[in-house]
Amino acid sequence: MNKNLQDTQTIDIDRQIKELESITLVPVGIVRSPIKKPMLRANAEGLIQDDPEANLTDHHNKRLTTISEIWINPELDGILDGIDGFSHIIVLYWPHLVNKDRRSLRKVHPMGRKDIPLQGIYATCSPARPNPILITAVKLLECTKNMVRVQGLEAVDGSPVIDIKPYNSGYYRIENPVVPEWMENIH
Amino acid sequence: MNKNLQDTQTIDIDRQIKELESITLVPVGIVRSPIKKPMLRANAEGLIQDDPEANLTDHHNKRLTTISEIWINPELDGILDGIDGFSHIIVLYWPHLVNKDRRSLRKVHPMGRKDIPLQGIYATCSPARPNPILITAVKLLECTKNMVRVQGLEAVDGSPVIDIKPYNSGYYRIENPVVPEWMENIH
Repeated sequence: MNKNLQDTQTIDIDRQIKELESITLVPVGIVRSPIKKPMLRANAEGLIQDDPEANLTDHHNKRLTTISEIWINPELDGILDGIDGFSHIIVLYWPHLVNKDRRSLRKVHPMGRKDIPLQGIYATCSPARPNPILITAVKLLECTKNMVRVQGLEAVDGSPVIDIKPYNSGYYRIENPVVPEWMENIH
Repeated sequence: MNKNLQDTQTIDIDRQIKELESITLVPVGIVRSPIKKPMLRANAEGLIQDDPEANLTDHHNKRLTTISEIWINPELDGILDGIDGFSHIIVLYWPHLVNKDRRSLRKVHPMGRKDIPLQGIYATCSPARPNPILITAVKLLECTKNMVRVQGLEAVDGSPVIDIKPYNSGYYRIENPVVPEWMENIH
């Protein structure tokens, strides 16, 4: 491609990005969980693991057995109808304990581990990110009119819930994904 | 549990949900895609498939080979660093062509198919939902300073991008998920 044409197109895309309007979300529910504090915090320098001795594999195994309740605003009457036909759902939630100033972080040491080189936020699962929406695929245990009981959710107690989706392999299931060595070693 | 105590707790949770503050997102980028219009539209009654003859399996197969570019705001310098170590990423985007009044839909016929009984929005992949953030796990083909080229993204051209995450099996990969018969039959 002609270099000047390419530059013009890039400038045009940058302009379009800057013109995008901000988006307002209204939380639809709240998480009730035995998890009372997050494994990671963020300060202006990056991520901090409160218990540096914590074993990540133990943490994940504990998370996988954790049972939480997601309470949905009763005004959204009927919105859960039929969800009990699925074995798993995707939960989108907001990590409300992350200070909003931490949304400006660009790079972090994954899990606050200084021995791992700095990575761009988008190469990490950092809860501090420009739009901190966290996602987990969880097992659906029970459903009432406005509550779903799930297993495997990492959200801390009181997290605002943004969306719930049925787990559909076509959109979320990847065979043999490759991750970098630092992420493989972390587990 | 004592019935009155249970009622009191439920009222307390409902109050907490109503008190949750709204959330503001600032799009971080934009999708450039050969897909120019969505497969589904929504009106006040529910979903409409513009081409009712369209074969969903064909649609999904086409989506799986579609190559798109995600352009990130150059002000977020460094945020993609290290993402090229992953074979797959999760993309969160906003279906900007869905009218905001459609966020109030509670139930729809999946894919606009009247022969399938109404389902609660949270039991469907409807792009019209209270907080319409759409998610796809896609293959990462190439990465530059502020662009990722991906395969398998369903987002239409011009969709605002909200977040990008590395694909990590622990959070997104479910073995043998069960879906209801209507969803199995739709494919």
